[in-house]
Amino acid sequence: MLGVCYYPEHWPEEYWARDARRMHALGLSYVRIGEFAWGRIEKSEGVFDWAWMDRAIETLGAAGLKVVLGTPTATPPKWLCAKYPDILPVDIQTGQVRGFGSRRHYDFSSETYLRQAESITAAMAERYGQHPHVVGWQTDNELCCHDTTMSASPAALEKFRAYCAKRYGNIETLNAAWGNVFWSMEYDGFDQIDLPFFTVCETNPAHRLAYRRFASEQVVHFHDVMISAIRRHAGPEQWVTHNIIPPATTGIDNVALTQALDFVSYDNYPLGFSDQLMATASAEEWRPFMRTGHPDLAALNFDSVRGLSKGAWWVMEQQPGPVNWAPHNPRPAPGMVRHWTLQAFAHGAACVAYFRWRQVPFAQEQMHAGLLRPDDMPATAWAEVEQVAAEMQLLGDVSAVAPKASVAILIDPVSGWVDDIERQGAGYRYDAVLFQYYCVLRSLGVDVDFVSAGEARLDSYKLIIVPTLAVVDDAAFDTLRASEGLLLFGPRSGAKTAEFSISEGLPPGRLREFVPIKVTSVETLRPDCNGTITYKNEVHESGRWRETIEVGAVDVIATYEDDAPAAVRSGRSLYLATLTDDAFIKNLLVDLCAEAGVAITPLPPTLRLRRRGDLTFAFNLADSAVNAPAPNGAVFIIGGAEIEPFGVAVWR
Amino acid sequence: MLGVCYYPEHWPEEYWARDARRMHALGLSYVRIGEFAWGRIEKSEGVFDWAWMDRAIETLGAAGLKVVLGTPTATPPKWLCAKYPDILPVDIQTGQVRGFGSRRHYDFSSETYLRQAESITAAMAERYGQHPHVVGWQTDNELCCHDTTMSASPAALEKFRAYCAKRYGNIETLNAAWGNVFWSMEYDGFDQIDLPFFTVCETNPAHRLAYRRFASEQVVHFHDVMISAIRRHAGPEQWVTHNIIPPATTGIDNVALTQALDFVSYDNYPLGFSDQLMATASAEEWRPFMRTGHPDLAALNFDSVRGLSKGAWWVMEQQPGPVNWAPHNPRPAPGMVRHWTLQAFAHGAACVAYFRWRQVPFAQEQMHAGLLRPDDMPATAWAEVEQVAAEMQLLGDVSAVAPKASVAILIDPVSGWVDDIERQGAGYRYDAVLFQYYCVLRSLGVDVDFVSAGEARLDSYKLIIVPTLAVVDDAAFDTLRASEGLLLFGPRSGAKTAEFSISEGLPPGRLREFVPIKVTSVETLRPDCNGTITYKNEVHESGRWRETIEVGAVDVIATYEDDAPAAVRSGRSLYLATLTDDAFIKNLLVDLCAEAGVAITPLPPTLRLRRRGDLTFAFNLADSAVNAPAPNGAVFIIGGAEIEPFGVAVWR
Amino acid sequence: MLGVCYYPEHWPEEYWARDARRMHALGLSYVRIGEFAWGRIEKSEGVFDWAWMDRAIETLGAAGLKVVLGTPTATPPKWLCAKYPDILPVDIQTGQVRGFGSRRHYDFSSETYLRQAESITAAMAERYGQHPHVVGWQTDNELCCHDTTMSASPAALEKFRAYCAKRYGNIETLNAAWGNVFWSMEYDGFDQIDLPFFTVCETNPAHRLAYRRFASEQVVHFHDVMISAIRRHAGPEQWVTHNIIPPATTGIDNVALTQALDFVSYDNYPLGFSDQLMATASAEEWRPFMRTGHPDLAALNFDSVRGLSKGAWWVMEQQPGPVNWAPHNPRPAPGMVRHWTLQAFAHGAACVAYFRWRQVPFAQEQMHAGLLRPDDMPATAWAEVEQVAAEMQLLGDVSAVAPKASVAILIDPVSGWVDDIERQGAGYRYDAVLFQYYCVLRSLGVDVDFVSAGEARLDSYKLIIVPTLAVVDDAAFDTLRASEGLLLFGPRSGAKTAEFSISEGLPPGRLREFVPIKVTSVETLRPDCNGTITYKNEVHESGRWRETIEVGAVDVIATYEDDAPAAVRSGRSLYLATLTDDAFIKNLLVDLCAEAGVAITPLPPTLRLRRRGDLTFAFNLADSAVNAPAPNGAVFIIGGAEIEPFGVAVWR
Ligand SMILES: [Zn+2]
Ligand SMILES: [Zn+2]
Ligand SMILES: [Zn+2]
Repeated sequence: MLGVCYYPEHWPEEYWARDARRMHALGLSYVRIGEFAWGRIEKSEGVFDWAWMDRAIETLGAAGLKVVLGTPTATPPKWLCAKYPDILPVDIQTGQVRGFGSRRHYDFSSETYLRQAESITAAMAERYGQHPHVVGWQTDNELCCHDTTMSASPAALEKFRAYCAKRYGNIETLNAAWGNVFWSMEYDGFDQIDLPFFTVCETNPAHRLAYRRFASEQVVHFHDVMISAIRRHAGPEQWVTHNIIPPATTGIDNVALTQALDFVSYDNYPLGFSDQLMATASAEEWRPFMRTGHPDLAALNFDSVRGLSKGAWWVMEQQPGPVNWAPHNPRPAPGMVRHWTLQAFAHGAACVAYFRWRQVPFAQEQMHAGLLRPDDMPATAWAEVEQVAAEMQLLGDVSAVAPKASVAILIDPVSGWVDDIERQGAGYRYDAVLFQYYCVLRSLGVDVDFVSAGEARLDSYKLIIVPTLAVVDDAAFDTLRASEGLLLFGPRSGAKTAEFSISEGLPPGRLREFVPIKVTSVETLRPDCNGTITYKNEVHESGRWRETIEVGAVDVIATYEDDAPAAVRSGRSLYLATLTDDAFIKNLLVDLCAEAGVAITPLPPTLRLRRRGDLTFAFNLADSAVNAPAPNGAVFIIGGAEIEPFGVAVWR
Repeated sequence: MLGVCYYPEHWPEEYWARDARRMHALGLSYVRIGEFAWGRIEKSEGVFDWAWMDRAIETLGAAGLKVVLGTPTATPPKWLCAKYPDILPVDIQTGQVRGFGSRRHYDFSSETYLRQAESITAAMAERYGQHPHVVGWQTDNELCCHDTTMSASPAALEKFRAYCAKRYGNIETLNAAWGNVFWSMEYDGFDQIDLPFFTVCETNPAHRLAYRRFASEQVVHFHDVMISAIRRHAGPEQWVTHNIIPPATTGIDNVALTQALDFVSYDNYPLGFSDQLMATASAEEWRPFMRTGHPDLAALNFDSVRGLSKGAWWVMEQQPGPVNWAPHNPRPAPGMVRHWTLQAFAHGAACVAYFRWRQVPFAQEQMHAGLLRPDDMPATAWAEVEQVAAEMQLLGDVSAVAPKASVAILIDPVSGWVDDIERQGAGYRYDAVLFQYYCVLRSLGVDVDFVSAGEARLDSYKLIIVPTLAVVDDAAFDTLRASEGLLLFGPRSGAKTAEFSISEGLPPGRLREFVPIKVTSVETLRPDCNGTITYKNEVHESGRWRETIEVGAVDVIATYEDDAPAAVRSGRSLYLATLTDDAFIKNLLVDLCAEAGVAITPLPPTLRLRRRGDLTFAFNLADSAVNAPAPNGAVFIIGGAEIEPFGVAVWR
Repeated sequence: MLGVCYYPEHWPEEYWARDARRMHALGLSYVRIGEFAWGRIEKSEGVFDWAWMDRAIETLGAAGLKVVLGTPTATPPKWLCAKYPDILPVDIQTGQVRGFGSRRHYDFSSETYLRQAESITAAMAERYGQHPHVVGWQTDNELCCHDTTMSASPAALEKFRAYCAKRYGNIETLNAAWGNVFWSMEYDGFDQIDLPFFTVCETNPAHRLAYRRFASEQVVHFHDVMISAIRRHAGPEQWVTHNIIPPATTGIDNVALTQALDFVSYDNYPLGFSDQLMATASAEEWRPFMRTGHPDLAALNFDSVRGLSKGAWWVMEQQPGPVNWAPHNPRPAPGMVRHWTLQAFAHGAACVAYFRWRQVPFAQEQMHAGLLRPDDMPATAWAEVEQVAAEMQLLGDVSAVAPKASVAILIDPVSGWVDDIERQGAGYRYDAVLFQYYCVLRSLGVDVDFVSAGEARLDSYKLIIVPTLAVVDDAAFDTLRASEGLLLFGPRSGAKTAEFSISEGLPPGRLREFVPIKVTSVETLRPDCNGTITYKNEVHESGRWRETIEVGAVDVIATYEDDAPAAVRSGRSLYLATLTDDAFIKNLLVDLCAEAGVAITPLPPTLRLRRRGDLTFAFNLADSAVNAPAPNGAVFIIGGAEIEPFGVAVWR
């Protein structure tokens, strides 16, 4: 299904009915409204104006549209900030209060804000929880965006102390857990603990990890209260979702954040995100993708979000043209809006909603495209949406959860925190390590699932890649043990205890049950100053992060330039002790896929495949036509054997 | 005429008479004093010591020099800051008070400071307003330098609220004008409005534009009060000027700033400004100009200042050797001080005053050269000043306003603010866009005037270039309509309303009267990832900022790689929808000059021409001799047919 | 002798005896303990727990180890910070308090902290000042590390005002000395003086120089109080040292800091420091040294520390493997721990102590290697220490102060401050200028002493290099005059008075007694845009900092591209007026060494020589063997005629 984001409060009321009719005529089924409208709903504390929203919903519903209601807690109005200034967050770099005037200006630890936000959310749910046109809810908007997960506010300090008291019970336990004897950092009581900011040099990593866990829990708790406020009043047929930003950028535990949702939504801006991701790429690397986005970035986020979602996931905001917020904002190549839409469905989406109906001529996002131009004429994307709306019929029902893949990548928020907290090598980034495996697999035509560490669903995968899993808790350990596929661990796996110490008996700690080795030393190198790794007589680059390992009963499958072991295997488990170039990863994964019985289809950088059920989708990112890698006898549902530039083919 | 900046308070009184005699003997006519001397004049509030200044003026005047008095408001003394700490500005990045210890430590919105500054200015004018040796006044010094236009002070906040109340009348009007319904940013009253700093993400561009207008008006108001304080007491024969920094760097409306002045002065530091401008240029690009400055930068500022000035403009401070404040501070190439002096006259200056008489051995600027070294011996520039003083006789009277050129570039402070506020593409800078046209015209040997949007004096120009004019107010519109030359609009022209919304009916809004097109979409690209523009079968680069346009009854004169229109023409008006390389601009301007009857003389990068009345000046920036591009029969006033390295020729 | 740093408080008490036995068995003589243990010693104000430390010392001593006691003032415990928050320093960039949670969170100007620190130091000295196992003391730890020399605290402000009152006597003297008449910066009283931070543009350099002197004196005073507190109680056979960071990075007067010590210690981390030093080097430049460190960086610091030390100096912390704090942290090449150890002895060390015994698995430095791994097994360095412990026997007694070299480089903290304060050219750094001379001399196989300006011990040197000596005080002047060797002054020598004015009669001021010249102008250039210097018909690069000089009765020995003098000589004194490339420096020094009778041995970049008494050490930094440049008949004490990769040879 298709949908669109709409802001009736931005437009004269006389536009509404025509807008609604045109939406329906275009083939859109859903319309999201309301998520920044607090100021128009609650004019001052407890004084509500529902009339305009009643009329808006009625008008949209009357045109045959299903309404998704956003709760407006991302933008507390000025009267609220003025009355309760303690709701504002505090910048962790500068210590300055982050004030009113944009959005997300609230502190997840503020009890005052929690009550106010719960109140407006509940009020909305009470009013529309039984409304026949309202099919579901979106909580808040893009939680954690604009670096709002962490705050140095007094509220955060107070709650963090309480969090520590609860987690550790007594201060001696905390001191021991964190190793505070180091540098005389021991506390006499929980009321002495500060937030880990504004110190002379780096704070205890255990202190920071505790704060990161706390900050994540603050967001999750806030969100859970909002979900509950909705569910208290909403009918059982109304679902609840949230539109998350790229999961790797929230800095929190996304599984916890989304667990109480019916399904997860994602806001998909391939060009803006790619411009940021490839900011340091050369012109030669960037030019082919500046109007399509990096070939694997949207897919990465699609697969990540699918991995978080109980029900079939949504794209809640789909980029329809140039955006306004990246350093550079190209227009999409012709056909890319359709391409991205079909790509989302290929990766398991149930609905793609475009952001936004009509480009608004005022305020912060006036340079962000919509389906309609500010002069109410169709923008470039309009015709592509028309086309894809028709093609949706060919795809059939997409509301069901997509089947599992054969290959899983295990992900884990704690590994991201560990990387943030203990840099050790400027060339190491957890996200980049994970992305490298993903890109290689995608270039081999392999479908990938992301599974969060500790989720009990690794059983059916033939190949499980653990790019790194710094902290292995019981749940993750049990799940790994219960899995049956080939298991590939990357460097830094099992490196740390839950309280950010080096694992007992050296890394990989309890993962030694899988691979009997000890990481005796780690070195980090400049990205342009590598050593080598030799695998089956081919020499590749090994660099950035390199571990020296002592091995027990394992097969050494790759070696460093000094013949020391660089990758080892024990039964179905492998441990790779270094970061490498793409070619090494590809060679290794080709072999592992063959062994595991995972079919591969090596692809050029501008062609990608994705299966959903019995459909195979092929996506051409090149500005020239390409032959679809379809088997003989394939029945084309969309497109044909030659895929046009930026085009898509789907066959059965 | 020539002059010099002098600080009698820096030197023993016994130096003064000899200094004055040497100035006069060197051929200097004017001497500027006083502009940082507040602490020596007003020792504590209301307690004045005029005696030393009386003697200094008398001594200088007695030697035949005309005295220009600087009012000392750029450096409020410590007793004032200690007594009235509310005069200090607040940093808009950090929120910290910017304290005493350097200069410009005052807030343009402080009523306290306004009264104090008016008082010292009036007192000085009262004392010297009829003094026979005092011929004129310089207000303050380099207003807005060191990023002082904007402040996050309580005084600025209070005044900004009052400004908004006055501009918008009631809060509903402001909310509507800014589009505050977006993100629930509506205010209930003017006392809720904050300064647009320290928020979570970007503030409303309309909010920022209002603040920029306000900040500009604060500076102008302060300045006008100072000018009035002088004029209240000064005789009618005493003129008032101000020494502005490069107009593009004040961040304010320079027309408003300078309108009450008799003429405008400029502080000319070609090497320091060029080092900053070309900081990222390659060594190959920079080396030829490191001791001459960029070939068009000083000229740009000269022409800009001439455009602002009612009377013939001055150079109030001319770099005489290495300065102390740029990242790198080379010595000028031999002859460049003379070269820059004659260049100023070519561009219409009435006087060039050197900064400064003698290099002072102490405090902040001790590494900044003067005409004399700290040991009182002539510095390198001395002999060049001697030479140019003699050559001034050959030039004749330069006190009249220079004649108008045939080509005008239209400039506009609001376009600069729009660019600062709404980046959209990291490769777009209003100043750079404007500078590109200017450099191309200068490389064609064309003289250029800068005309501020809305000034009613476009009538006589044969070619008018509007690099961009984001907001077209009534005055600008009427002036453009009244013009008769060829009109070339660059991209983003007519893009915004006065309240920073997208223009009605899409850009270029009311400029559609000139060119019937609609800008339906804008894309911004990385500077190294361009598309193309084809003009008369030649392919050039189109990049950074590219507009998609729908065209009415126009001629398409250039196209993008997809054959879409990139530049169009309607009657005498052209619209260029993209930024391009220099070669395209050159080709286009060559054709437009030919059509308009503007003579061109293509020049190498190291040679520049400028006419003033019946004189033609040629400036050689190369370290080798060059033939003067003079017509047969030219009568050389200065130099001859072969121009020496770094030399100048002037012919009639 | 060899030693190790140990933290008994980090480990279960049952480890201690075995640890001590293994230390002794490995060949270690000294063990440093205690320097971060304040929290475990003083549990709350005045409540001490000595028992554990008594037992630790006893256990270590019983195993035959000599104990070095670190006083724990680098890490005030939380109870102290909570009770006396005025002890915390304030960041000079942001104005924020730098809080508890890491280390060095104290203000050198805090009287409260001074008393508290003196009290814990005295208490420790009282308890262990006569202890038979305690042989000496280390004060605090790495003073000034983490940019802690300067603070913007209220305590610093109050003390700075008092410092100014004492230095200048009355405010008129200060105003005159600083040249405060410039920009109306004159004060009416000392209570008006601010710290030179948070102003609109740059503050008076004289103001900043006074602050730098003050800040240096604050650290020295703090340190002297600590030393006195120890000496009051410690027996005369117990020595006192301090482990300084690289002397160029403290930002203070290291001679003053270390004068009251028996000898100076140094913390040697060649890889981390080299990664920082060469951060912008190309991969080709960096790769050969990424696992050895820059060939001359450790030596530079060794020679600097030897120059500061009365007794034979120590390495108190020697890197034993990868560290955790540089942007990249490679492992040392095989053999480098031994190599660095022998290198320290070659440069005059009496002891090398490794940091640290066992890698601790928790807190901030868990990724910093030790001699033992966290699992108690020998780390890579262990075997190298075993080897070097055996080799120590061959070297003989190293406890005596090393003999003087023939060549001295004169260094001076004020020159560093001048450079920090008055940039003038972004390509000029005092430390880099000095390092260039040092590297060239070392590449010629020449041993170098560093002598601090003003120390009366230049007499015996054959060649004295003064890279720059911005301020020449009486002591430095007298010492230079009393010297007899060739004297080479670099640019900016004699440039400033003690109060940061240009020297009387122009630079080099009083150094004109040595070289009768005047520096009439200075230019600074981009590092990639050089001019030339011609010496003996060879053309080299002259750049970054170039002085124009007027010469008296001198020989011009090198010239600029315009034939102006670039280097001159008068008797035994030379003045070089520009920075140059290495090749010029080498050519000049080869000639000067020949004239002075200093033997040279030109070396490749990966080979270095150093003599200590009758021993010659050769250090091979290459990964291939090299022939030792030993004379016929050399008797090898360690190694032989072919030096293995990363190896060392010593001969007599
Ligand atoms: Zn969004
Ligand atoms: Zn100036
Ligand atoms: Zn250390």
